[in-house]
Amino acid sequence: MAPLGALAPTSLQGRLDRCAINTATLGFQQPIGATIDAVARAGFRGIGPWRRELEGEPVARVARHIRDAGLAVTGYCRSTYLPAGDAAARAAAIDDNRRAIDEAVALGAGCFVVVVGSLPAGSKDLGRARAEVADGVARLLEHACDVGVHLGLEPLHPMYAGDRACLNTLAQALDLADVLEPEPASAPMLGLVVDAYHVWWDPDVAAQIMRAGAQSRIFAYHVSDWRVPTRDLLNDRAMMGDGVIDLPALRGQVEAAGYRGPIEVEVFSASDWWRRPVAATLAACAERLQTVT
Amino acid sequence: MAPLGALAPTSLQGRLDRCAINTATLGFQQPIGATIDAVARAGFRGIGPWRRELEGEPVARVARHIRDAGLAVTGYCRSTYLPAGDAAARAAAIDDNRRAIDEAVALGAGCFVVVVGSLPAGSKDLGRARAEVADGVARLLEHACDVGVHLGLEPLHPMYAGDRACLNTLAQALDLADVLEPEPASAPMLGLVVDAYHVWWDPDVAAQIMRAGAQSRIFAYHVSDWRVPTRDLLNDRAMMGDGVIDLPALRGQVEAAGYRGPIEVEVFSASDWWRRPVAATLAACAERLQTVT
Repeated sequence: MAPLGALAPTSLQGRLDRCAINTATLGFQQPIGATIDAVARAGFRGIGPWRRELEGEPVARVARHIRDAGLAVTGYCRSTYLPAGDAAARAAAIDDNRRAIDEAVALGAGCFVVVVGSLPAGSKDLGRARAEVADGVARLLEHACDVGVHLGLEPLHPMYAGDRACLNTLAQALDLADVLEPEPASAPMLGLVVDAYHVWWDPDVAAQIMRAGAQSRIFAYHVSDWRVPTRDLLNDRAMMGDGVIDLPALRGQVEAAGYRGPIEVEVFSASDWWRRPVAATLAACAERLQTVT
Repeated sequence: MAPLGALAPTSLQGRLDRCAINTATLGFQQPIGATIDAVARAGFRGIGPWRRELEGEPVARVARHIRDAGLAVTGYCRSTYLPAGDAAARAAAIDDNRRAIDEAVALGAGCFVVVVGSLPAGSKDLGRARAEVADGVARLLEHACDVGVHLGLEPLHPMYAGDRACLNTLAQALDLADVLEPEPASAPMLGLVVDAYHVWWDPDVAAQIMRAGAQSRIFAYHVSDWRVPTRDLLNDRAMMGDGVIDLPALRGQVEAAGYRGPIEVEVFSASDWWRRPVAATLAACAERLQTVT
C-alpha cells in the first residue's frame, strides 16, 4: 500500500475555474443549451457533454455556444462499444466512433472518452472481447491522430466487466496504451480517463497513477463518491463527501503524478441528485469540490 | 490475456463426490441438521456451513451429524471482520475469530474462510484497514497453526471494498500470504479461497491462479455465476450457466494449477434460488455442476 494520505492536494477553494461538470451529473433534464448556461452561471469553466445531448443539434452551433459561455470542453462522452458481435457490427461500431471523434474535433474536446464495452450478447469469452477492444482502439487511434483528438481510455469498475467495459484497471489500460502507442512522445494521443469511482478500491492505484503521469497519459480526472451501501450498480453514485472514498488523498496522488487538468464531477444518481433542480446540484458540486474533494 | 479456454477441465459427470454445497446457497431456510441431510441425500459429499447455523448447537454434535451423513466439511464460513475501529474492538474481533477457528477444528473443516472486512464506520482510510487486516491475519495464523486449521483468505469482488473486504484481488491476497508465511512448506497453512464470482473479471486471474497453485495455496474453489444485469450487489448471484462467467475455462485453470479439492457451489440469490424448495435448488446445483461448470 502506498501512503496516499501523504500527498496533499492543491486547494480548490475559489478555484472553480479548475473544475468541470460532466453533464450526466445533471440527469439530462434539460436541452444542452440550457445545461451549458447553467454550468457557466454556476462558475465552472469546463463541461463534459454526452453525445446523446447533441443528437439533432448542429455540432458547430453547440461548440460556439460552449465557447461563448466561457467553457472548455473536457472529455466528449463517449464511444460506442467495440466488441459488437460479428465483423460487420464491429466495423459499424468503428465507423460510428469515427463520427464521434469528428464531433470531438468540432467541440475542441480535451479528449474523446472511450468506454470500451465488453461481452456481446451470448458470449462468455472475455479474452476475445479484450482482443477486439485492442483491435478497435488501434483503429480509432489512427483516426484520432489524423484529426488531432486525444483518446481517453476509461477503465471501469470491475462490476461492469460483464457488459460495459472489459477494461477494468489502470494497469490494464496502461498496458494496452503501451502496446498501441509505445514510447510515446511528450504528448501521447492515447491516455486515460481516471475516475475515482472506478479505481479507488485498487490496491495498485497509487503506483499506476504515477506510471500514467510519468507518461503524460492522464487526460482527465473524474470525481464522485462510493455510497455504503450502494443500492444500484449503475446509477447510485454519491456526491463527493457522502461516500467512503478518500478523495483529497486520491487527488493529491493524481496531482503528484503531474496532472494539471480539470477536476470533473460525474455523479450518476437516479434516486437522488437527478431528482433535484439543476441549480441545486451545481451548487452542491461547487461546495463539495472546494471542501471535501 | 492468458488463453483460459485452452485448458479443459476434468469432467464432473457422475462426480458429485467431488462437489460440495455452501449452505448459503439454500438461503438458511432450515436448521443445520435438515440442511446436512438434504445435501447428503442430493448426492454431494461436501458441505460448507456458516457459523450462524451453529449458534446454540453443540459443535461436536453437528460435526458428528455431518460425518454420519458421509459429508466432509470444506470451508467453515466465516471470519468476523478484522478492521473494527479501536484497539479493543480489534482485539475482540481476534478473540471471536479464534473461537471460530476452534469450531473449525471441531468440524474438521478443510479451511476457515477469512473474509477480512474493510473500512470501519466513519473511516475512509483503506490503507489503514489493509494494515489492520495484515496484522489481524498474522495473529489468526499463529492460532490456526497451533490448532492445525488452514486459513483461506477470500478476496472479494472490488464492489465490496467499502464494507466487506479490502482484499480484492488474488494478487493482493497472495502478496499478503507471501509476507505472513514466506517460503511455505509443501503444505502452507495460509492460502486462498478462489471464488469465481469474485475473480472472473480480473485480467490477471490466470497468472495469479497459477501462482497460487504453484505454492499449494488454493484451499477452496467456489462457483456461481454473474448475472447481466446484476440487480443487487450482495444477493443476486446466478446459478452456474445463467450468467456470463466462462466457468469451464476457469475451472480448467484452477485444475491446471494443481487444485484437486472440492468444487463448492455458493449462490447468494434472495430473489430467486432462496425462494425455491431446498431439494429443487440442490437438484439444479447437481445438474449445472455436471453440465456447465
